Amino acid sequence: MKLGFIGLGAMGRPMAENLLRAGHELTVWARRPDAAAPLLKAGARYAETPAALARHADVVFIAVTASADVEQVVLGAQGLSEGARPGAVIVDHSTIAPAVARAVAARLARREIDFLDAPVSGGAGGARSATLAIMVGGAASALERVRPLLAVLGRTIVHVGDCGAGQVAKACNQMIMVAGIAAVAEAARLAAAHGLDFGRVRAALAAGSAGSRVLDVFGDRMARRDFAAGVAARLHHKDYGIFMAEAARLGAPLPVAAQVWQQLNALMARGFCDDDTSSLLKVLEA
Amino acid sequence: MKLGFIGLGAMGRPMAENLLRAGHELTVWARRPDAAAPLLKAGARYAETPAALARHADVVFIAVTASADVEQVVLGAQGLSEGARPGAVIVDHSTIAPAVARAVAARLARREIDFLDAPVSGGAGGARSATLAIMVGGAASALERVRPLLAVLGRTIVHVGDCGAGQVAKACNQMIMVAGIAAVAEAARLAAAHGLDFGRVRAALAAGSAGSRVLDVFGDRMARRDFAAGVAARLHHKDYGIFMAEAARLGAPLPVAAQVWQQLNALMARGFCDDDTSSLLKVLEA
Repeated sequence: MKLGFIGLGAMGRPMAENLLRAGHELTVWARRPDAAAPLLKAGARYAETPAALARHADVVFIAVTASADVEQVVLGAQGLSEGARPGAVIVDHSTIAPAVARAVAARLARREIDFLDAPVSGGAGGARSATLAIMVGGAASALERVRPLLAVLGRTIVHVGDCGAGQVAKACNQMIMVAGIAAVAEAARLAAAHGLDFGRVRAALAAGSAGSRVLDVFGDRMARRDFAAGVAARLHHKDYGIFMAEAARLGAPLPVAAQVWQQLNALMARGFCDDDTSSLLKVLEA
Repeated sequence: MKLGFIGLGAMGRPMAENLLRAGHELTVWARRPDAAAPLLKAGARYAETPAALARHADVVFIAVTASADVEQVVLGAQGLSEGARPGAVIVDHSTIAPAVARAVAARLARREIDFLDAPVSGGAGGARSATLAIMVGGAASALERVRPLLAVLGRTIVHVGDCGAGQVAKACNQMIMVAGIAAVAEAARLAAAHGLDFGRVRAALAAGSAGSRVLDVFGDRMARRDFAAGVAARLHHKDYGIFMAEAARLGAPLPVAAQVWQQLNALMARGFCDDDTSSLLKVLEA
Protein backbone atom coordinates (compact mmCIF):
# COMPACT_ATOMS: atom_id res chain seq x y z
CA MET A 1 0.00 0.00 0.00
CA LYS A 2 1.14 3.60 -0.54
CA LEU A 3 1.84 5.13 2.82
CA GLY A 4 2.97 8.49 4.16
CA PHE A 5 4.65 9.23 7.48
CA ILE A 6 5.01 12.66 9.08
CA GLY A 7 7.17 13.24 12.14
CA LEU A 8 10.38 11.23 12.41
CA GLY A 9 11.43 11.72 16.03
CA ALA A 10 12.09 9.20 18.80
CA MET A 11 8.73 7.51 18.16
CA GLY A 12 8.01 8.24 14.48
CA ARG A 13 11.29 7.09 13.01
CA PRO A 14 11.25 3.49 14.30
CA MET A 15 7.53 3.24 13.46
CA ALA A 16 8.18 4.40 9.90
CA GLU A 17 11.07 1.96 9.64
CA ASN A 18 8.79 -0.91 10.66
CA LEU A 19 6.28 0.02 7.91
CA LEU A 20 9.06 0.20 5.34
CA ARG A 21 10.46 -3.15 6.46
CA ALA A 22 6.99 -4.69 6.06
CA GLY A 23 7.25 -3.93 2.32
CA HIS A 24 5.14 -0.81 1.94
CA GLU A 25 5.88 2.08 -0.38
CA LEU A 26 6.65 4.93 2.02
CA THR A 27 6.91 8.69 1.58
CA VAL A 28 8.05 10.76 4.54
CA TRP A 29 8.10 14.38 5.64
CA ALA A 30 9.64 16.00 8.71
CA ARG A 31 9.99 19.57 9.87
CA ARG A 32 13.76 19.00 9.96
CA PRO A 33 14.50 17.22 6.63
CA ASP A 34 17.76 15.71 7.95
CA ALA A 35 15.65 13.57 10.31
CA ALA A 36 14.55 11.68 7.20
CA ALA A 37 18.06 10.68 6.04
CA PRO A 38 18.15 7.14 7.54
CA LEU A 39 14.72 6.38 6.08
CA LEU A 40 15.63 7.67 2.62
CA LYS A 41 18.70 5.46 2.71
CA ALA A 42 16.42 2.50 3.52
CA GLY A 43 14.22 3.20 0.50
CA ALA A 44 11.65 5.82 1.51
CA ARG A 45 10.91 8.85 -0.67
CA TYR A 46 10.82 12.42 0.58
CA ALA A 47 7.96 14.82 -0.06
CA GLU A 48 8.51 18.59 -0.06
CA THR A 49 5.29 19.29 1.86
CA PRO A 50 2.60 17.35 3.76
CA ALA A 51 0.19 18.16 0.90
CA ALA A 52 2.58 16.60 -1.65
CA LEU A 53 3.00 13.56 0.60
CA ALA A 54 -0.77 13.11 0.88
CA ARG A 55 -1.33 13.30 -2.87
CA HIS A 56 -0.03 9.79 -3.47
CA ALA A 57 -0.86 8.09 -0.17
CA ASP A 58 -3.71 5.79 0.78
CA VAL A 59 -2.89 6.11 4.46
CA VAL A 60 -0.88 8.82 6.23
CA PHE A 61 0.56 8.41 9.73
CA ILE A 62 1.45 11.34 12.00
CA ALA A 63 3.74 11.25 15.04
CA VAL A 64 4.43 14.81 16.17
CA THR A 65 4.45 16.43 19.62
CA ALA A 66 1.60 18.80 20.33
CA SER A 67 -1.95 19.77 19.37
CA ALA A 68 -0.67 22.79 17.38
CA ASP A 69 1.75 20.58 15.42
CA VAL A 70 -1.08 18.28 14.32
CA GLU A 71 -3.29 21.24 13.35
CA GLN A 72 -0.40 22.67 11.33
CA VAL A 73 0.52 19.51 9.37
CA VAL A 74 -3.12 18.63 8.70
CA LEU A 75 -4.94 21.95 8.28
CA GLY A 76 -2.11 24.47 7.74
CA ALA A 77 -0.83 25.84 4.41
CA GLN A 78 0.41 22.94 2.27
CA GLY A 79 -1.06 20.64 4.90
CA LEU A 80 -2.34 17.09 4.45
CA SER A 81 -5.91 18.21 3.89
CA GLU A 82 -4.85 20.11 0.76
CA GLY A 83 -3.39 16.99 -0.82
CA ALA A 84 -5.28 14.01 0.55
CA ARG A 85 -7.74 12.24 -1.72
CA PRO A 86 -11.29 11.38 -0.65
CA GLY A 87 -11.19 7.91 0.87
CA ALA A 88 -7.74 8.38 2.38
CA VAL A 89 -7.18 7.66 6.08
CA ILE A 90 -5.04 9.83 8.35
CA VAL A 91 -3.86 8.07 11.53
CA ASP A 92 -2.53 10.39 14.23
CA HIS A 93 -0.21 8.73 16.76
CA SER A 94 0.60 12.01 18.55
CA THR A 95 -0.64 12.68 22.09
CA ILE A 96 -2.89 15.76 21.82
CA ALA A 97 -6.10 17.18 23.26
CA PRO A 98 -9.22 15.09 22.51
CA ALA A 99 -11.07 18.28 21.52
CA VAL A 100 -8.42 19.07 18.88
CA ALA A 101 -8.60 15.51 17.54
CA ARG A 102 -12.39 15.88 17.24
CA ALA A 103 -12.10 19.27 15.49
CA VAL A 104 -9.49 18.04 13.01
CA ALA A 105 -11.59 14.94 12.27
CA ALA A 106 -14.67 17.09 11.62
CA ARG A 107 -12.78 19.30 9.17
CA LEU A 108 -11.45 16.26 7.28
CA ALA A 109 -14.84 14.53 7.23
CA ARG A 110 -16.18 17.33 4.98
CA ARG A 111 -13.66 16.19 2.37
CA GLU A 112 -14.44 12.49 2.96
CA ILE A 113 -11.09 11.85 4.58
CA ASP A 114 -11.12 9.58 7.64
CA PHE A 115 -9.15 10.61 10.70
CA LEU A 116 -8.26 8.25 13.54
CA ASP A 117 -6.71 9.40 16.79
CA ALA A 118 -4.39 6.54 17.68
CA PRO A 119 -1.95 7.55 20.43
CA VAL A 120 0.43 4.87 21.59
CA SER A 121 1.99 3.67 24.82
CA GLY A 122 5.27 1.83 25.17
CA GLY A 123 7.92 4.46 24.44
CA ALA A 124 10.75 4.43 21.91
CA GLY A 125 11.61 0.85 22.92
CA GLY A 126 8.07 -0.29 22.16
CA ALA A 127 8.17 1.59 18.84
CA ARG A 128 11.39 -0.22 17.83
CA SER A 129 10.18 -3.66 18.90
CA ALA A 130 6.68 -3.05 17.45
CA THR A 131 5.09 -3.86 20.82
CA LEU A 132 3.20 -0.57 21.27
CA ALA A 133 -0.28 -0.45 22.78
CA ILE A 134 -2.42 1.56 20.33
CA MET A 135 -5.59 3.29 21.58
CA VAL A 136 -7.91 4.20 18.75
CA GLY A 137 -10.77 6.68 18.47
CA GLY A 138 -12.87 7.19 15.32
CA ALA A 139 -14.95 5.22 12.82
CA ALA A 140 -14.71 1.44 13.21
CA SER A 141 -14.76 1.07 9.40
CA ALA A 142 -11.65 3.25 9.04
CA LEU A 143 -9.90 1.30 11.78
CA GLU A 144 -10.63 -2.00 10.03
CA ARG A 145 -9.01 -0.65 6.84
CA VAL A 146 -5.77 0.26 8.60
CA ARG A 147 -5.69 -2.50 11.22
CA PRO A 148 -3.16 -4.65 9.29
CA LEU A 149 -0.86 -1.62 9.19
CA LEU A 150 -1.28 -0.91 12.90
CA ALA A 151 -0.46 -4.56 13.56
CA VAL A 152 2.97 -3.81 12.05
CA LEU A 153 3.50 -1.08 14.66
CA GLY A 154 2.08 -2.50 17.87
CA ARG A 155 0.93 -5.55 19.75
CA THR A 156 -2.44 -4.46 21.06
CA ILE A 157 -4.92 -2.33 19.12
CA VAL A 158 -8.07 -1.35 21.03
CA HIS A 159 -10.96 0.61 19.53
CA VAL A 160 -11.95 2.74 22.52
CA GLY A 161 -14.80 4.70 20.92
CA ASP A 162 -15.61 7.63 18.66
CA CYS A 163 -13.29 10.41 17.61
CA GLY A 164 -11.13 11.61 20.50
CA ALA A 165 -11.63 8.43 22.54
CA GLY A 166 -8.09 7.28 21.79
CA GLN A 167 -6.76 10.56 23.19
CA VAL A 168 -8.91 10.21 26.31
CA ALA A 169 -7.51 6.71 26.85
CA LYS A 170 -3.99 8.05 26.38
CA ALA A 171 -4.71 10.80 28.92
CA CYS A 172 -5.85 8.11 31.36
CA ASN A 173 -2.67 6.15 30.60
CA GLN A 174 -0.39 9.11 31.29
CA MET A 175 -2.29 10.13 34.40
CA ILE A 176 -2.04 6.65 35.91
CA MET A 177 1.56 6.08 34.80
CA VAL A 178 3.02 9.35 36.07
CA ALA A 179 0.98 9.20 39.31
CA GLY A 180 2.55 5.76 39.70
CA ILE A 181 6.05 7.16 39.14
CA ALA A 182 5.37 9.86 41.75
CA ALA A 183 4.11 7.28 44.26
CA VAL A 184 7.14 5.05 43.69
CA ALA A 185 9.39 8.09 44.18
CA GLU A 186 7.71 8.83 47.51
CA ALA A 187 8.10 5.19 48.56
CA ALA A 188 11.81 5.41 47.68
CA ARG A 189 12.04 8.63 49.74
CA LEU A 190 10.31 7.01 52.73
CA ALA A 191 12.55 3.93 52.50
CA ALA A 192 15.64 6.19 52.44
CA ALA A 193 14.35 8.10 55.49
CA HIS A 194 14.27 4.75 57.29
CA GLY A 195 17.82 4.01 56.12
CA LEU A 196 16.75 1.21 53.78
CA ASP A 197 18.07 0.22 50.37
CA PHE A 198 15.19 0.83 47.93
CA GLY A 199 16.42 -1.92 45.62
CA ARG A 200 15.54 -4.52 48.26
CA VAL A 201 12.22 -2.84 49.06
CA ARG A 202 11.35 -2.84 45.36
CA ALA A 203 12.20 -6.54 45.09
CA ALA A 204 9.89 -7.27 48.03
CA LEU A 205 7.04 -5.33 46.40
CA ALA A 206 7.32 -6.57 42.81
CA ALA A 207 5.31 -9.74 43.36
CA GLY A 208 2.62 -8.14 45.52
CA SER A 209 -0.44 -5.97 45.10
CA ALA A 210 1.68 -2.87 44.30
CA GLY A 211 3.37 -4.60 41.37
CA SER A 212 3.33 -2.71 38.06
CA ARG A 213 5.36 -1.91 34.97
CA VAL A 214 6.07 1.48 36.55
CA LEU A 215 7.55 -0.16 39.66
CA ASP A 216 9.62 -2.49 37.48
CA VAL A 217 10.99 0.15 35.12
CA PHE A 218 11.01 3.47 37.00
CA GLY A 219 11.49 1.90 40.44
CA ASP A 220 14.57 0.16 39.11
CA ARG A 221 15.92 3.45 37.70
CA MET A 222 15.41 5.12 41.09
CA ALA A 223 17.07 2.23 42.95
CA ARG A 224 20.09 2.47 40.62
CA ARG A 225 19.87 6.29 40.56
CA ASP A 226 19.97 6.20 36.77
CA PHE A 227 17.98 9.26 35.72
CA ALA A 228 18.85 9.20 31.99
CA ALA A 229 15.67 9.70 30.04
CA GLY A 230 13.52 6.94 28.63
CA VAL A 231 10.91 9.57 27.76
CA ALA A 232 11.89 13.16 28.62
CA ALA A 233 9.98 14.44 31.67
CA ARG A 234 8.89 17.56 29.76
CA LEU A 235 6.68 15.34 27.56
CA HIS A 236 4.87 13.95 30.60
CA HIS A 237 4.52 17.53 31.86
CA LYS A 238 2.98 18.47 28.49
CA ASP A 239 0.56 15.52 28.65
CA TYR A 240 -0.57 16.50 32.16
CA GLY A 241 -1.22 20.04 30.96
CA ILE A 242 -3.55 18.72 28.25
CA PHE A 243 -5.83 16.67 30.44
CA MET A 244 -5.79 18.97 33.46
CA ALA A 245 -7.16 21.67 31.13
CA GLU A 246 -9.74 19.21 29.78
CA ALA A 247 -10.73 18.27 33.33
CA ALA A 248 -11.22 21.94 34.20
CA ARG A 249 -13.37 22.44 31.10
CA LEU A 250 -15.47 19.36 31.90
CA GLY A 251 -15.67 19.95 35.66
CA ALA A 252 -14.06 16.62 36.50
CA PRO A 253 -12.23 16.67 39.86
CA LEU A 254 -8.74 15.09 39.72
CA PRO A 255 -7.20 15.82 43.13
CA VAL A 256 -4.34 13.30 43.01
CA ALA A 257 -3.45 14.17 39.41
CA ALA A 258 -3.42 17.84 40.44
CA GLN A 259 -0.79 17.11 43.07
CA VAL A 260 1.27 15.03 40.61
CA TRP A 261 1.05 17.94 38.17
CA GLN A 262 2.54 20.27 40.78
CA GLN A 263 5.40 17.81 41.32
CA LEU A 264 5.99 17.83 37.56
CA ASN A 265 6.02 21.65 37.72
CA ALA A 266 8.68 21.39 40.44
CA LEU A 267 10.64 19.00 38.19
CA MET A 268 10.58 21.56 35.37
CA ALA A 269 11.55 24.35 37.78
CA ARG A 270 14.51 22.30 38.97
CA GLY A 271 15.67 22.01 35.33
CA PHE A 272 15.13 18.27 34.90
CA CYS A 273 13.11 18.82 31.69
CA ASP A 274 15.10 16.41 29.55
CA ASP A 275 15.78 13.86 32.27
CA ASP A 276 13.70 10.84 33.08
CA THR A 277 10.50 11.31 35.09
CA SER A 278 12.03 9.08 37.78
CA SER A 279 13.80 12.37 38.69
CA LEU A 280 10.61 13.11 40.67
CA LEU A 281 12.60 11.40 43.44
CA LYS A 282 15.20 14.20 43.31
CA VAL A 283 12.49 16.83 43.89
CA LEU A 284 11.74 15.08 47.22
CA GLU A 285 15.38 15.21 48.28
CA ALA A 286 17.27 18.09 49.86
CA MET B 1 7.08 -28.31 64.53
CA LYS B 2 5.00 -26.90 67.38
CA LEU B 3 3.39 -23.72 66.17
CA GLY B 4 1.10 -21.06 67.61
CA PHE B 5 -1.18 -18.69 65.72
CA ILE B 6 -2.78 -15.55 67.13
CA GLY B 7 -5.44 -13.60 65.24
CA LEU B 8 -7.87 -15.60 63.13
CA GLY B 9 -9.52 -12.97 60.93
CA ALA B 10 -9.75 -12.64 57.15
CA MET B 11 -5.98 -13.11 56.80
CA GLY B 12 -5.01 -15.15 59.87
CA ARG B 13 -7.54 -17.94 59.54
CA PRO B 14 -6.57 -19.14 56.04
CA MET B 15 -2.88 -18.77 56.93
CA ALA B 16 -3.34 -20.90 60.06
CA GLU B 17 -5.28 -23.45 58.03
CA ASN B 18 -2.40 -23.73 55.56
CA LEU B 19 0.06 -24.42 58.41
CA LEU B 20 -2.24 -27.05 59.86
CA ARG B 21 -2.69 -28.68 56.45
CA ALA B 22 1.11 -28.85 56.09
CA GLY B 23 1.14 -31.22 59.07
CA HIS B 24 2.22 -28.97 61.93
CA GLU B 25 0.97 -29.17 65.49
CA LEU B 26 -0.96 -25.92 65.87
CA THR B 27 -2.31 -24.06 68.90
CA VAL B 28 -4.44 -20.97 68.31
CA TRP B 29 -5.74 -17.99 70.25
CA ALA B 30 -8.12 -15.24 69.19
CA ARG B 31 -9.70 -12.32 71.01
CA ARG B 32 -13.08 -13.75 69.99
CA PRO B 33 -12.76 -17.50 70.78
CA ASP B 34 -15.56 -18.43 68.35
CA ALA B 35 -13.25 -17.34 65.50
CA ALA B 36 -11.21 -20.45 66.32
CA ALA B 37 -14.04 -22.95 65.86
CA PRO B 38 -13.26 -24.02 62.24
CA LEU B 39 -9.58 -24.52 63.12
CA LEU B 40 -10.35 -26.57 66.23
CA LYS B 41 -12.58 -28.76 64.07
CA ALA B 42 -9.64 -29.24 61.71
CA GLY B 43 -7.37 -30.39 64.54
CA ALA B 44 -5.90 -27.29 66.17
CA ARG B 45 -5.80 -26.85 69.96
CA TYR B 46 -7.00 -23.75 71.77
CA ALA B 47 -4.94 -21.88 74.38
CA GLU B 48 -6.62 -19.77 77.06
CA THR B 49 -4.07 -16.94 76.76
CA PRO B 50 -1.21 -15.89 74.46
CA ALA B 51 1.22 -16.79 77.30
CA ALA B 52 -0.20 -20.32 77.50
CA LEU B 53 0.02 -20.64 73.72
CA ALA B 54 3.67 -19.54 73.73
CA ARG B 55 4.67 -22.02 76.42
CA HIS B 56 4.60 -25.00 74.04
CA ALA B 57 5.43 -23.32 70.73
CA ASP B 58 8.71 -23.12 68.82
CA VAL B 59 7.32 -20.47 66.48
CA VAL B 60 4.34 -18.15 67.02
CA PHE B 61 2.61 -16.26 64.20
CA ILE B 62 0.56 -13.10 64.74
CA ALA B 63 -1.99 -11.63 62.33
CA VAL B 64 -3.91 -8.85 64.11
CA THR B 65 -4.91 -5.34 63.03
CA ALA B 66 -3.05 -2.50 64.68
CA SER B 67 0.12 -1.55 66.55
CA ALA B 68 -1.71 -1.58 69.91
CA ASP B 69 -3.03 -5.10 69.23
CA VAL B 70 0.49 -6.42 68.67
CA GLU B 71 1.79 -4.68 71.80
CA GLN B 72 -1.07 -6.20 73.78
CA VAL B 73 -0.70 -9.82 72.64
CA VAL B 74 3.09 -9.73 72.94
CA LEU B 75 3.84 -7.49 75.90
CA GLY B 76 0.49 -7.23 77.73
CA ALA B 77 -0.67 -9.25 80.76
CA GLN B 78 -0.66 -12.96 79.87
CA GLY B 79 1.07 -11.97 76.64
CA LEU B 80 3.42 -14.04 74.50
CA SER B 81 6.52 -12.67 76.21
CA GLU B 82 5.38 -14.16 79.53
CA GLY B 83 5.18 -17.65 78.07
CA ALA B 84 7.68 -17.85 75.25
CA ARG B 85 10.87 -19.83 75.78
CA PRO B 86 14.31 -18.49 74.95
CA GLY B 87 15.09 -19.48 71.38
CA ALA B 88 11.49 -19.14 70.23
CA VAL B 89 10.65 -17.03 67.17
CA ILE B 90 7.66 -14.69 66.94
CA VAL B 91 6.63 -13.79 63.39
CA ASP B 92 4.28 -10.81 63.12
CA HIS B 93 2.25 -10.65 59.89
CA SER B 94 0.23 -7.60 61.01
CA THR B 95 0.70 -4.21 59.35
CA ILE B 96 1.90 -1.86 62.08
CA ALA B 97 4.29 1.05 62.65
CA PRO B 98 7.97 0.18 62.04
CA ALA B 99 8.86 1.94 65.32
CA VAL B 100 6.50 -0.34 67.27
CA ALA B 101 7.96 -3.41 65.57
CA ARG B 102 11.45 -2.26 66.57
CA ALA B 103 10.38 -1.59 70.18
CA VAL B 104 8.66 -4.97 70.56
CA ALA B 105 11.69 -6.72 69.05
CA ALA B 106 14.03 -4.96 71.49
CA ARG B 107 11.91 -6.02 74.48
CA LEU B 108 11.86 -9.65 73.31
CA ALA B 109 15.59 -9.68 72.55
CA ARG B 110 16.31 -9.24 76.28
CA ARG B 111 14.64 -12.61 76.81
CA GLU B 112 16.42 -14.18 73.83
CA ILE B 113 13.24 -14.39 71.78
CA ASP B 114 13.54 -13.51 68.11
CA PHE B 115 10.94 -11.24 66.56
CA LEU B 116 10.43 -10.85 62.81
CA ASP B 117 8.17 -8.23 61.30
CA ALA B 118 6.74 -10.02 58.28
CA PRO B 119 3.75 -8.13 56.84
CA VAL B 120 2.14 -9.61 53.77
CA SER B 121 0.61 -8.44 50.52
CA GLY B 122 -1.97 -10.31 48.48
CA GLY B 123 -5.16 -10.06 50.51
CA ALA B 124 -7.45 -12.82 51.77
CA GLY B 125 -7.31 -14.49 48.35
CA GLY B 126 -3.53 -14.65 48.52
CA ALA B 127 -3.74 -16.00 52.08
CA ARG B 128 -6.06 -18.81 50.95
CA SER B 129 -4.02 -19.75 47.89
CA ALA B 130 -0.70 -19.36 49.78
CA THR B 131 0.57 -16.88 47.19
CA LEU B 132 1.27 -13.99 49.58
CA ALA B 133 4.29 -11.74 49.16
CA ILE B 134 6.03 -11.67 52.57
CA MET B 135 8.32 -8.73 53.45
CA VAL B 136 10.61 -9.56 56.33
CA GLY B 137 12.58 -7.39 58.74
CA GLY B 138 14.83 -8.76 61.51
CA ALA B 139 17.75 -11.14 62.02
CA ALA B 140 18.65 -13.21 58.93
CA SER B 141 19.34 -16.22 61.18
CA ALA B 142 15.80 -16.13 62.59
CA LEU B 143 14.36 -15.82 59.09
CA GLU B 144 16.29 -18.87 57.94
CA ARG B 145 14.83 -20.91 60.80
CA VAL B 146 11.24 -20.07 59.86
CA ARG B 147 11.65 -19.81 56.07
CA PRO B 148 10.20 -23.30 55.40
CA LEU B 149 7.11 -22.27 57.39
CA LEU B 150 6.75 -18.97 55.51
CA ALA B 151 7.02 -20.94 52.26
CA VAL B 152 3.78 -22.67 53.34
CA LEU B 153 2.08 -19.26 53.54
CA GLY B 154 3.39 -17.31 50.57
CA ARG B 155 5.14 -17.42 47.23
CA THR B 156 7.80 -14.75 47.67
CA ILE B 157 9.75 -14.12 50.85
CA VAL B 158 12.14 -11.16 50.77
CA HIS B 159 14.46 -10.21 53.61
CA VAL B 160 14.33 -6.42 53.33
CA GLY B 161 16.64 -5.55 56.23
CA ASP B 162 16.82 -5.18 60.00
CA CYS B 163 13.93 -4.99 62.43
CA GLY B 164 11.11 -2.79 61.09
CA ALA B 165 12.28 -3.05 57.47
CA GLY B 166 9.41 -5.39 56.62
CA GLN B 167 6.95 -2.80 57.91
CA VAL B 168 8.64 -0.05 55.90
CA ALA B 169 8.33 -2.19 52.77
CA LYS B 170 4.67 -2.80 53.56
CA ALA B 171 4.14 0.95 54.02
CA CYS B 172 5.69 1.48 50.58
CA ASN B 173 3.42 -1.23 49.20
CA GLN B 174 0.27 0.35 50.61
CA MET B 175 1.30 3.85 49.57
CA ILE B 176 1.92 2.79 45.97
CA MET B 177 -1.13 0.52 45.76
CA VAL B 178 -3.70 2.99 47.13
CA ALA B 179 -2.19 5.90 45.17
CA GLY B 180 -2.67 3.63 42.15
CA ILE B 181 -6.30 3.00 43.06
CA ALA B 182 -6.87 6.75 43.41
CA ALA B 183 -5.25 7.44 40.04
CA VAL B 184 -7.33 4.74 38.34
CA ALA B 185 -10.46 6.24 39.95
CA GLU B 186 -9.58 9.66 38.52
CA ALA B 187 -8.96 8.11 35.10
CA ALA B 188 -12.39 6.47 35.31
CA ARG B 189 -13.90 9.84 36.29
CA LEU B 190 -12.20 11.61 33.36
CA ALA B 191 -13.32 8.90 30.94
CA ALA B 192 -16.91 9.26 32.20
CA ALA B 193 -16.71 13.06 31.78
CA HIS B 194 -15.87 12.39 28.12
CA GLY B 195 -18.80 9.98 27.86
CA LEU B 196 -16.62 6.92 27.49
CA ASP B 197 -17.06 3.39 28.83
CA PHE B 198 -14.21 2.85 31.30
CA GLY B 199 -14.18 -0.89 30.63
CA ARG B 200 -12.93 -0.24 27.10
CA VAL B 201 -10.44 2.37 28.26
CA ARG B 202 -9.10 -0.09 30.83
CA ALA B 203 -8.71 -2.77 28.17
CA ALA B 204 -6.73 -0.33 26.00
CA LEU B 205 -4.43 0.51 28.93
CA ALA B 206 -3.79 -2.96 30.34
CA ALA B 207 -1.00 -3.85 27.93
CA GLY B 208 0.73 -0.46 28.04
CA SER B 209 2.99 1.47 30.36
CA ALA B 210 0.17 2.10 32.87
CA GLY B 211 -0.48 -1.62 33.31
CA SER B 212 -0.56 -2.91 36.88
CA ARG B 213 -2.26 -5.32 39.24
CA VAL B 214 -4.22 -2.35 40.59
CA LEU B 215 -5.54 -1.50 37.10
CA ASP B 216 -6.44 -5.15 36.54
CA VAL B 217 -8.21 -5.72 39.85
CA PHE B 218 -9.53 -2.34 41.06
CA GLY B 219 -9.98 -0.89 37.54
CA ASP B 220 -12.16 -3.87 36.71
CA ARG B 221 -14.23 -3.35 39.88
CA MET B 222 -14.75 0.32 38.94
CA ALA B 223 -15.69 -0.56 35.35
CA ARG B 224 -18.27 -3.06 36.64
CA ARG B 225 -19.24 -0.74 39.51
CA ASP B 226 -18.76 -3.61 41.95
CA PHE B 227 -17.70 -1.94 45.19
CA ALA B 228 -17.97 -5.00 47.47
CA ALA B 229 -14.83 -5.17 49.57
CA GLY B 230 -11.79 -7.21 48.78
CA VAL B 231 -10.01 -5.46 51.66
CA ALA B 232 -12.16 -2.96 53.60
CA ALA B 233 -11.18 0.64 52.81
CA ARG B 234 -10.85 1.45 56.52
CA LEU B 235 -7.78 -0.82 56.66
CA HIS B 236 -6.07 1.15 53.87
CA HIS B 237 -7.03 4.33 55.73
CA LYS B 238 -5.38 2.89 58.86
CA ASP B 239 -2.22 1.98 56.92
CA TYR B 240 -1.96 5.49 55.48
CA GLY B 241 -2.27 6.95 58.96
CA ILE B 242 0.71 4.87 60.12
CA PHE B 243 3.18 5.95 57.47
CA MET B 244 2.01 9.55 57.17
CA ALA B 245 2.79 9.88 60.90
CA GLU B 246 6.18 8.21 60.37
CA ALA B 247 6.89 10.55 57.45
CA ALA B 248 6.10 13.56 59.66
CA ARG B 249 8.40 12.24 62.39
CA LEU B 250 11.22 11.61 59.88
CA GLY B 251 10.68 14.80 57.85
CA ALA B 252 10.08 12.91 54.62
CA PRO B 253 7.86 14.86 52.18
CA LEU B 254 5.10 12.73 50.61
CA PRO B 255 2.93 15.21 48.68
CA VAL B 256 1.04 12.73 46.50
CA ALA B 257 0.45 10.32 49.39
CA ALA B 258 -0.86 13.31 51.41
CA GLN B 259 -3.49 13.97 48.75
CA VAL B 260 -4.43 10.27 48.55
CA TRP B 261 -4.79 10.31 52.34
CA GLN B 262 -7.27 13.18 52.13
CA GLN B 263 -9.27 11.21 49.56
CA LEU B 264 -9.30 8.26 51.98
CA ASN B 265 -10.53 10.67 54.67
CA ALA B 266 -13.33 11.70 52.30
CA LEU B 267 -14.12 8.01 51.76
CA MET B 268 -14.46 7.49 55.52
CA ALA B 269 -16.57 10.65 55.84
CA ARG B 270 -18.91 9.37 53.12
CA GLY B 271 -19.38 6.17 55.15
CA PHE B 272 -17.67 3.76 52.75
CA CYS B 273 -15.47 2.35 55.56
CA ASP B 274 -16.31 -1.30 54.93
CA ASP B 275 -16.54 -1.02 51.15
CA ASP B 276 -13.77 -1.62 48.69
CA THR B 277 -11.21 1.13 48.17
CA SER B 278 -12.33 1.29 44.53
CA SER B 279 -15.12 3.41 46.10
CA LEU B 280 -12.65 6.30 45.78
CA LEU B 281 -14.38 6.70 42.42
CA LYS B 282 -17.67 7.49 44.21
CA VAL B 283 -16.00 10.33 46.14
CA LEU B 284 -15.25 11.96 42.76
CA GLU B 285 -18.87 11.68 41.64
CA ALA B 286 -21.73 14.03 42.41
